[in-house]
Amino acid sequence: MDATNSSLSSGETSYADIKSFFDSAPPLKDSAEIKRKLEEFMQKNHVPLGNGEANRVVCVTSGGTTVPLEQRCVRYIDNFSSGHRGAASTEYFLKAGYAVVFLHRRGTCQPYCRSLPDDPLLECFEVTDESNITVNPIHAITVKGAIRDNRGAVIRGNLLKLPFTTIFEYLQILQLIALSMRSLGSHALFYLAAAVSDFYVPWESMEVHKIQSSSGPLDMRLAQVPKMLSVLRKDWAPTAFCISFKLETDIKILLAKAGMALEKYNMHMVVANELLTRKEEVIVVDKSGNIRVHRDKTRVDADVEEPLIKLIVDRHSSYISSEP
Amino acid sequence: MDATNSSLSSGETSYADIKSFFDSAPPLKDSAEIKRKLEEFMQKNHVPLGNGEANRVVCVTSGGTTVPLEQRCVRYIDNFSSGHRGAASTEYFLKAGYAVVFLHRRGTCQPYCRSLPDDPLLECFEVTDESNITVNPIHAITVKGAIRDNRGAVIRGNLLKLPFTTIFEYLQILQLIALSMRSLGSHALFYLAAAVSDFYVPWESMEVHKIQSSSGPLDMRLAQVPKMLSVLRKDWAPTAFCISFKLETDIKILLAKAGMALEKYNMHMVVANELLTRKEEVIVVDKSGNIRVHRDKTRVDADVEEPLIKLIVDRHSSYISSEP
Repeated sequence: MDATNSSLSSGETSYADIKSFFDSAPPLKDSAEIKRKLEEFMQKNHVPLGNGEANRVVCVTSGGTTVPLEQRCVRYIDNFSSGHRGAASTEYFLKAGYAVVFLHRRGTCQPYCRSLPDDPLLECFEVTDESNITVNPIHAITVKGAIRDNRGAVIRGNLLKLPFTTIFEYLQILQLIALSMRSLGSHALFYLAAAVSDFYVPWESMEVHKIQSSSGPLDMRLAQVPKMLSVLRKDWAPTAFCISFKLETDIKILLAKAGMALEKYNMHMVVANELLTRKEEVIVVDKSGNIRVHRDKTRVDADVEEPLIKLIVDRHSSYISSEP
Repeated sequence: MDATNSSLSSGETSYADIKSFFDSAPPLKDSAEIKRKLEEFMQKNHVPLGNGEANRVVCVTSGGTTVPLEQRCVRYIDNFSSGHRGAASTEYFLKAGYAVVFLHRRGTCQPYCRSLPDDPLLECFEVTDESNITVNPIHAITVKGAIRDNRGAVIRGNLLKLPFTTIFEYLQILQLIALSMRSLGSHALFYLAAAVSDFYVPWESMEVHKIQSSSGPLDMRLAQVPKMLSVLRKDWAPTAFCISFKLETDIKILLAKAGMALEKYNMHMVVANELLTRKEEVIVVDKSGNIRVHRDKTRVDADVEEPLIKLIVDRHSSYISSEP
C-alpha cells in the first residue's frame, strides 16, 4: 500500500490513518496458519469450469467486533450481532455453488445451526445408560441436519471458517483474505455483514492495567476506526464484487447513510437494515435505485436471506459477464 | 429500602444512588416467572435435616455484565469473563451438598461443561446414517458426563439456572434471589464471582438511537454503578455468609482493594484474583489475614476451585455454628 499511488477524495479515510491503525495493532496470532489455510482453500476452489466460467468464492463476514479498553483486556466495547444473517447467507451461497470463507466472531451463530436451542448439548440430548446418547425427538431433525451439513461443507473443503474477536483481528484477517482472493478477479465476492466498530482506542494509548473505578465518573475519548472499505475496493481486491451493510435504528438516517456508503466507498451494493424489522425485510441500494427484499410470509420458516442471496447471485453473474 | 433506616459511613454508596439506579433501570422481563422459580426452589431445598442442621443454599454469580450504550442496544461495554470459575465452583458446591442458584451471563461456561471443545455439537458428534448420531470417541466420556450431570442436577432440583445479560438485569435478579434467601438465615451463602461493571450509562440519559460516527472522536461520560454489596449485606440478606471477588492485573492494587472491600462492604471473605495467575492460585482475604489457595500441581486436571470451595465450606460451617 503506498499513499502516493492513490488520490483521496474529501471526507475519505487517509492512507496515513490506515497505516497508523495497522502499525499500532497488536500482531495477529496464527497469521502463518491462516495464510496456509487460505492458500489451500483458494487452490481447491479456484477451478476453471471449462465453459469459460470458474468457481466463485465469497467472503462472508459475520458477528460484531470488540474494542479492548485495556491492553490486558478486562473491559471492552462490543457491537451486538448474533451472526444469524451471516450464517444464513453462508448456507444459501453454498447452495448456489459458491465456496465460502466465513469470517465470524467467535461464539456467534454457525451455518446450519440457526434453529438449534441456545444450549443444544444440554437441551437436545439424553444419556440413557453408560453407552448410549439419544437425541430428544423434538430436536432430532434439526440436530442431525446441523451436524451433517456443517461438517459436510467443512470436510468437502467448500467452507473455510476463520474466527475473530477484536476489531484488530477482524481487519487484519480481512486483509489476508482479500489479498488471497485477488487472483479470482470478478469471481470474488465480498459480503461484509459483520458489525464493525466505528470507534476504537489506539493500542499504544490504551491503559495497560485495569481502569480504576475509585475516582468518580469515567471519561473516555475513542478514535474513529478508519473506513477500510475504500482500501478493500481500491487496493486489496479491486476487481471483486463488493457488498457492504448498514444497520441503523432510524430509517431516515439508514437510507441516507446507505446511499452515502455506495458512493463514498464505491460499493456495488449496500444492504440497508433497520434494527427492528431486519428479519422481515432489507433494502438493497445500488446504482439503479432501491429494491425492497422481504421474506416469503406464506412460509413460516422462510427467511429474508433466501431472496437476498438469489438477487445477489444474479447481480454477481451480470457483473462477471460485463467484466473484460 | 428506606434511606433513613441506615447510617452511611463516608465513601459508601448512598441509598439515594441505589434507588436512582433501580428507578432508572428498564423493567425486568419475566420477573414473575423468576420469583415463582425461586419460591419453588427454596421450598424444595430449605429442608431441616433433623439434627438442628438444615440444607444450605448458595447463590453463585458468574460471567460478566454488559452496559448498554444505546437504548435500542447495538453497542455496549462488556466485562470479560468466561464464567469458568463460577461453573467449576457450582460443581464443587453441589458435591458438598449445597443447593445452587446459578446466576450466570447468557452463553458463558456451564457446570460440568468445562472440558468440552468450543463448539461441542459440531466437534463431538457425527451422523453415521439417517437414524444414528455417534459421539467422537475422544470426547465420549466428557460429553456423556456433561449431559448426565448437568441435566441430573437441574432435574433433581438442586440447581436453578438464571441467566442475565445487562448490569440492570444482574442487579435486579440478585435482589430477588437475596430476598428469597433471607429465610435461610446463616445457611445462605453468596459467592459473588461475576465480573460486574463499575461504570454505566443511566438509562434515561442514554441515546435512543445508534450513536453516529460521522462527527469525529466519541467522548463518553460513564457514571459509577452504585456498590450493591453494602445493601446486600445490610438489607437484602443480613444473616447470610457473603464472599465477594476482586480481579486486577496489578497484584499491589489487588491486595489493597481486597482488604478495602472486606472492610467497606463488611464481607466475610474476599477472593483476590490476579488476571494472569488466577487459574493457578487465589488469595483468600478475611479478618484473620491472607490465605494463598493453589491448585494441586501433581494432578493435571486439578483446579483451584476444589481447595477453594473446601475452605469456604469449612468457614461457612463455623459461621453457622457461631450464629445464635
